[in-house]
Amino acid sequence: MKRLAILTSGGDCSGMNAAIRSAVRTALRMNIEVIGIRKGYLGLMKGDAINLDNKAVSGILHRGGTFLQSARSMEFKTPEGQQQAIEKLREMGVDGLIVMGGDGSLAGALALHRLGFPVVGIPASIDNDIPYTDMALGVDTALNNILYAVDCIKDTASSHARAFVIEVMGRNSGYLASISAIATGAEYALVPERDYDLSEICQQLRGRFAEGRDNAIIILAEGAGHAQDIANSIKDAIGFEVRVTVLGHYQRGGAPTVFDRLLASRFGKKATELLISGVSGVMVGLSCNSMLATPLEDVIKGEKQPQDEVLRMAEVLGI
Amino acid sequence: MKRLAILTSGGDCSGMNAAIRSAVRTALRMNIEVIGIRKGYLGLMKGDAINLDNKAVSGILHRGGTFLQSARSMEFKTPEGQQQAIEKLREMGVDGLIVMGGDGSLAGALALHRLGFPVVGIPASIDNDIPYTDMALGVDTALNNILYAVDCIKDTASSHARAFVIEVMGRNSGYLASISAIATGAEYALVPERDYDLSEICQQLRGRFAEGRDNAIIILAEGAGHAQDIANSIKDAIGFEVRVTVLGHYQRGGAPTVFDRLLASRFGKKATELLISGVSGVMVGLSCNSMLATPLEDVIKGEKQPQDEVLRMAEVLGI
Amino acid sequence: MKRLAILTSGGDCSGMNAAIRSAVRTALRMNIEVIGIRKGYLGLMKGDAINLDNKAVSGILHRGGTFLQSARSMEFKTPEGQQQAIEKLREMGVDGLIVMGGDGSLAGALALHRLGFPVVGIPASIDNDIPYTDMALGVDTALNNILYAVDCIKDTASSHARAFVIEVMGRNSGYLASISAIATGAEYALVPERDYDLSEICQQLRGRFAEGRDNAIIILAEGAGHAQDIANSIKDAIGFEVRVTVLGHYQRGGAPTVFDRLLASRFGKKATELLISGVSGVMVGLSCNSMLATPLEDVIKGEKQPQDEVLRMAEVLGI
Amino acid sequence: MKRLAILTSGGDCSGMNAAIRSAVRTALRMNIEVIGIRKGYLGLMKGDAINLDNKAVSGILHRGGTFLQSARSMEFKTPEGQQQAIEKLREMGVDGLIVMGGDGSLAGALALHRLGFPVVGIPASIDNDIPYTDMALGVDTALNNILYAVDCIKDTASSHARAFVIEVMGRNSGYLASISAIATGAEYALVPERDYDLSEICQQLRGRFAEGRDNAIIILAEGAGHAQDIANSIKDAIGFEVRVTVLGHYQRGGAPTVFDRLLASRFGKKATELLISGVSGVMVGLSCNSMLATPLEDVIKGEKQPQDEVLRMAEVLGI
Repeated sequence: MKRLAILTSGGDCSGMNAAIRSAVRTALRMNIEVIGIRKGYLGLMKGDAINLDNKAVSGILHRGGTFLQSARSMEFKTPEGQQQAIEKLREMGVDGLIVMGGDGSLAGALALHRLGFPVVGIPASIDNDIPYTDMALGVDTALNNILYAVDCIKDTASSHARAFVIEVMGRNSGYLASISAIATGAEYALVPERDYDLSEICQQLRGRFAEGRDNAIIILAEGAGHAQDIANSIKDAIGFEVRVTVLGHYQRGGAPTVFDRLLASRFGKKATELLISGVSGVMVGLSCNSMLATPLEDVIKGEKQPQDEVLRMAEVLGI
Repeated sequence: MKRLAILTSGGDCSGMNAAIRSAVRTALRMNIEVIGIRKGYLGLMKGDAINLDNKAVSGILHRGGTFLQSARSMEFKTPEGQQQAIEKLREMGVDGLIVMGGDGSLAGALALHRLGFPVVGIPASIDNDIPYTDMALGVDTALNNILYAVDCIKDTASSHARAFVIEVMGRNSGYLASISAIATGAEYALVPERDYDLSEICQQLRGRFAEGRDNAIIILAEGAGHAQDIANSIKDAIGFEVRVTVLGHYQRGGAPTVFDRLLASRFGKKATELLISGVSGVMVGLSCNSMLATPLEDVIKGEKQPQDEVLRMAEVLGI
Repeated sequence: MKRLAILTSGGDCSGMNAAIRSAVRTALRMNIEVIGIRKGYLGLMKGDAINLDNKAVSGILHRGGTFLQSARSMEFKTPEGQQQAIEKLREMGVDGLIVMGGDGSLAGALALHRLGFPVVGIPASIDNDIPYTDMALGVDTALNNILYAVDCIKDTASSHARAFVIEVMGRNSGYLASISAIATGAEYALVPERDYDLSEICQQLRGRFAEGRDNAIIILAEGAGHAQDIANSIKDAIGFEVRVTVLGHYQRGGAPTVFDRLLASRFGKKATELLISGVSGVMVGLSCNSMLATPLEDVIKGEKQPQDEVLRMAEVLGI
Repeated sequence: MKRLAILTSGGDCSGMNAAIRSAVRTALRMNIEVIGIRKGYLGLMKGDAINLDNKAVSGILHRGGTFLQSARSMEFKTPEGQQQAIEKLREMGVDGLIVMGGDGSLAGALALHRLGFPVVGIPASIDNDIPYTDMALGVDTALNNILYAVDCIKDTASSHARAFVIEVMGRNSGYLASISAIATGAEYALVPERDYDLSEICQQLRGRFAEGRDNAIIILAEGAGHAQDIANSIKDAIGFEVRVTVLGHYQRGGAPTVFDRLLASRFGKKATELLISGVSGVMVGLSCNSMLATPLEDVIKGEKQPQDEVLRMAEVLGI
């Protein structure tokens, strides 16, 4: 192996730059060149690439997002698009590819692997909805961003005896919502994995209001409802005034936490070592504090198990 | 003078607790008692108060919001309501009142003063729309909260070559929007004090996109339009994909900055000293780094001048 | 079981309050009372305790340190002291005790268990030197505090082409030093578990300086040398000017991160459930994302294994 | 005027990059080129410079330190050195120079002005010891860094009933110490401008300890004593255990606050406009929220007045 490529795809997250840096440094130590593909699979099909030497990845460890940029590409989902991608990789003299992103991005990696091109995936998705890794890249930073915002909102909620419905990311996964509910002492986490009963919630909140509690926080995963709808449904029934905040893209960015910088460094190093040693078609993951390689096939077919212990705990520690 | 009261009213902001602490410590040094009225004018009319000794204000300096809470009261706006408030104050043995809040709250303070009750006001409003003070309490903390969020959003914007419309507070004032635009290097600040031409903005952004710039940030004061409407108007004309984030109540809270803790300490001390020395019907303010007392009458009639230098600078440093 | 007690002992850390809250809420749900012993074993021997109801633990989740306070006690290390502690617990009607702290504190817990008193331990120590738990409470917050400080120092180091020796906590453990070195992109982590060769380091740093690199960061665990001594040894040999910063107690405090709040919530809940179900003489721990109970005997005899993978990675990603 | 140069000198601070960016953008709008001198006067004498176009100053607004770097030069203090600097400037086709730094740096600027070279200065010094500006660049960020650290240390102090002596920067100025004491609720600020009586302090602290207060914080300006010496002097006399933290270079760096980014933007723009309009030998400053130009001669001869109101307030709000 002489030359690797790395690309970031799908939604960006904090830690991607740290993982790129780690992959580059690991490869260079083994005298293997690295190029960075810009704008994900879209850029790959165009051969949009830059050389990544030690200097190119200096000063990026602490920066959010991905300096290689990301983009969507419908064309890459076609067999022709994938074939074209492989041709471009060969034209550029690339022997192996590291793909960093969420499940869509990893499905693309699997397609390239099936077409015979060596690929290793790195799970990066703030929703933490990728199976076969305890944590995906970017989750811990997103959680701490949410924490900071909710701690702020709680101050103002308490000052006005208000309830807040705070919407966080998570289309299919309540991970961010339930963990941040525990971490901020929120009263409820509404998640797509579990039904909830607004009338029961209203009754409990009314009780809380009657007791003289000065605030109530409901963390809502975006996949479990619309914040404003929920606010409208409960606003006349709970005593508290209700306000809504949708945290949005603020959750994605910012300097990565220690956990994400370390995870990124481990993922980048392991993915590079696997690829160089001849392994293809796997995703690196974190399992019991160790690096684990799982066939991309299993990752794509698999489903992340909701953390029942955590979901139950959110209930015990809440209201 | 034997006993002062203090209340917080209107929208809460960071630094209110620090100002309460400072007022209490200043009064106690002069052997004057202090009580805290809970829930603003609403609580005042009910005589809802707690004693504030040194211990009661210990450990609150760094906390956002107001532990005395705030609330709205329509009834207090009537002559009967105001008369009742004064009676309650007298019942509680209170000789003077400190009112902390925005222009509505200060208008209430003026009403009490006109009815003969000694009152001093402290300007607190994250919009920075109160005249006769360079800065109101809470503005600096709100600005730094906005900064943190926009720095995060810029990471993700750059990763996807996106434009973001970010809505900040400011119904009548573009202060937060224009200052945070300068501080974050945003391309535009859309403010209520100035007309803007979306078609011109689109043209400039298209140029920026064509040059290969990887993001564009528009900071919008809530009084200058709706973020989603603006996003819809420009989304097909600028090259960049467009996303929207409404920062909402997150802006209000959080541990106050040094500036707000210091300003709060100065406001609380000065208001207390003025009241004790027999002054009434004024608001304390910050003017050229000094404490200034201005008749509440002038404050209520006055209008905050937009900072033209700053608005112009936002343009020079932008696109 | 009718009444539990909880105490914090040894060096404080962020997350202790969150763990107390979780233990109290868990016990109250099962109709068991909780009292908080103040000032660790010292307070225990005096019966210095407060009642902990839901309200007592409200508003503490996000606060650093321990509101129950901690202290050292030589007397408790004697058989007489331990006997007295048990008598006090019985006087207060306590049927079980949760002890939170580092290895010294857990050794005290084991002593009480051997004397027949039901005890469960929670590992809390920013050094992460306690075996049978992947992470102790407070480590993640300490790491992120270090990260913030080192990111700041790197700015100034780069501005002056300086090397910095930054001393972090860790008398017997290089965990904080090595993880924070990876997370901040430091050139070296000097740890007690591994010998280092200053003349080799000097040679490498001289090379780095010659290449035109604008800074060099050495993270030193306190158990691996004195920062100023190391600075003196290298200052004339590396090209860079050298400066020293000892981060000190700043590392311990501050609002806990999401990770520490979640870990604290899990530890507090699990320790309470174990104690109530009749288990004694164990420490709860985090193992492969699950809660694990290990006999305190094994914990005290055991030794935390250094994370070789991590130590090696620090070398690869460094200079 | 066709080409400006800008350099940063002396101790770095947060906001320098933002000021460089603002100066460059302002000049480019007026079709004037800008070069950046690297490593202050040392680099100037060697002609070590880079071209600064819009792109060169993109993405630096939020970075601490100075990307142009800073350095000390004894040689520049000689007439020969200064002559050489002017020759280099002329060789590089430079018509005017912006110097950013503390009083030593501004004295150098004055020397060049006296030799006939057009120069404008920008005050940058976290000590806030430069006269004729209410605030120097970097002060607000340093204060907020101190705040964060002291808030953390207070958590651990309270957990162990300890007193802390925390040393902050300020060789000749107690500004950082006194403002941060007010902002953190510290009991004492020891500053070079005022004598202090350790025996009186001990007596008061002993009283505080006797009252059962759980911590005491003393903020010490480095020019007012050595932290460890003070700790040794009081440790047996106050009841509290005593610990020491020296915050060090951590104070200098980090992402600048809103205040510093705005101040930097104003300073950079104003300095550039003045130089282009033919003014030389002045320093820009902040006075009553406006930009003020003061002859460098007056700045160098002048002395910053200690803020008596603030120093007194620290006393009132303390113990």
